[in-house]
Amino acid sequence: MTIGHVSLVGAGPGDPELWTVRGRRRVEEADLVLYDALVDARALRALTRARCFCVGKRAGRASVRQETIHRLMIRAARAGQRVVRLKGGDPFVFGRGAEEALALAQAGVACEVVPGVTTAVAAPELAGIPVTHRGVASGFLVIAGHAGETFDAALAAVRPNTITLVVMMGLAVRGQIAARLQAHGWAADSRAALVCGASTPDAWTWSGRLSDVEQAVPPDGVPGVLVVGEVVQVREALAEATKSTETISHEGHKDPKGRYGFGG
Amino acid sequence: MTIGHVSLVGAGPGDPELWTVRGRRRVEEADLVLYDALVDARALRALTRARCFCVGKRAGRASVRQETIHRLMIRAARAGQRVVRLKGGDPFVFGRGAEEALALAQAGVACEVVPGVTTAVAAPELAGIPVTHRGVASGFLVIAGHAGETFDAALAAVRPNTITLVVMMGLAVRGQIAARLQAHGWAADSRAALVCGASTPDAWTWSGRLSDVEQAVPPDGVPGVLVVGEVVQVREALAEATKSTETISHEGHKDPKGRYGFGG
Repeated sequence: MTIGHVSLVGAGPGDPELWTVRGRRRVEEADLVLYDALVDARALRALTRARCFCVGKRAGRASVRQETIHRLMIRAARAGQRVVRLKGGDPFVFGRGAEEALALAQAGVACEVVPGVTTAVAAPELAGIPVTHRGVASGFLVIAGHAGETFDAALAAVRPNTITLVVMMGLAVRGQIAARLQAHGWAADSRAALVCGASTPDAWTWSGRLSDVEQAVPPDGVPGVLVVGEVVQVREALAEATKSTETISHEGHKDPKGRYGFGG
Repeated sequence: MTIGHVSLVGAGPGDPELWTVRGRRRVEEADLVLYDALVDARALRALTRARCFCVGKRAGRASVRQETIHRLMIRAARAGQRVVRLKGGDPFVFGRGAEEALALAQAGVACEVVPGVTTAVAAPELAGIPVTHRGVASGFLVIAGHAGETFDAALAAVRPNTITLVVMMGLAVRGQIAARLQAHGWAADSRAALVCGASTPDAWTWSGRLSDVEQAVPPDGVPGVLVVGEVVQVREALAEATKSTETISHEGHKDPKGRYGFGG
């Protein structure tokens, strides 16, 4: 019996250039790729001759059940295939990656994890917002906004207005999240930003005050993060400094946006 | 006047295979690379014909002053060079990357940021510990352990025993950190792990209880993170499941460690 293996690979925030070198090689050499909806399917198929299946949620369709994903991986690996499970961001940040690793280990299937660039850090970063900044924020908390009870439990764990807060998967309920943050003691005028589609052509950023988050209107169907904290000021400082000087992109052309590298 | 640019590139936890595709290309095409001590200098020099200078702390020598790093980058970029500032982990996580971006913007030098795999997530991950896990931890807090006051402020921000805590840069003072965590209300028998040199040949992992952290003896001179939270159990569950089955590495050889992918 030939025995294959599974690589749980993080695909980063969106742009395939932000895949890791190892992650990319695993994809190139794969026989089967099971990918999440957030992964750039066109780039994926251009890179590999593997059979590629989307197992994530897509507009109007439910995602493949977690148990089915486990079964597909185990069956293919047992048939000797090189399987890549390609997940948005990092596989072990809200990605159920560890559940998949456990299922594979319990089935006796060899498994490795290839970390990816986590969207929790990279999305703010690509919008010019560092999750930590000397004298401003000495730590950051990452929580998921889509699950009400879990969110409140995580939120209750932190004292308001002290560190940077990154809320993932909460865009659709951003108004409720902002209200709950304020109910938990976060100042209404806390700096806040929404960063959607970071590193993709759909990149979009809004920054303002926590109390105005509900009024922001992010583009439909583009995932994003909510950042709350004084670090949002760094984006404004970067924009200010860049505006007052002339910025040239690395191709030597003038950047049409008047800034380089901090888009959205 | 030719005008160059600066790329602030995250080099991930150590293994150059965990650089991003874009980060690697920036290094390959660079004229000048200023790298931190945590970066694999041999791999770096093998990849590029750029002049490469270590500006980080090395054994027995102080690091280059931050202002000097700024000046070096600005001067080279103004002379038309492609400059890469290569930083361990992600440039915007405790990396002073945003300070560098601001200095460059203020000097009118074009600058981009290329996110990297953050060690805060990847180090635990490579040891089989997910920072989030369904039903176990719905969020994670990342703080720096080396600065006393800042550490206490960040720590006071979070209610004990609720989310995963990742403490970076605190290995040398791990005993004090464990004591301060307990003083802040973290249970003495909280699960804890030390993960050092993740993704490098020096990888080393210890797991146990918070009260025993001081007794753990990590290898000298290898940076690491302290993880506190019930997610450490996942590592044990993975090891248990793997022990009871036969694991084959992706090269088709039996993994000498009896497990695949979760080393240290």
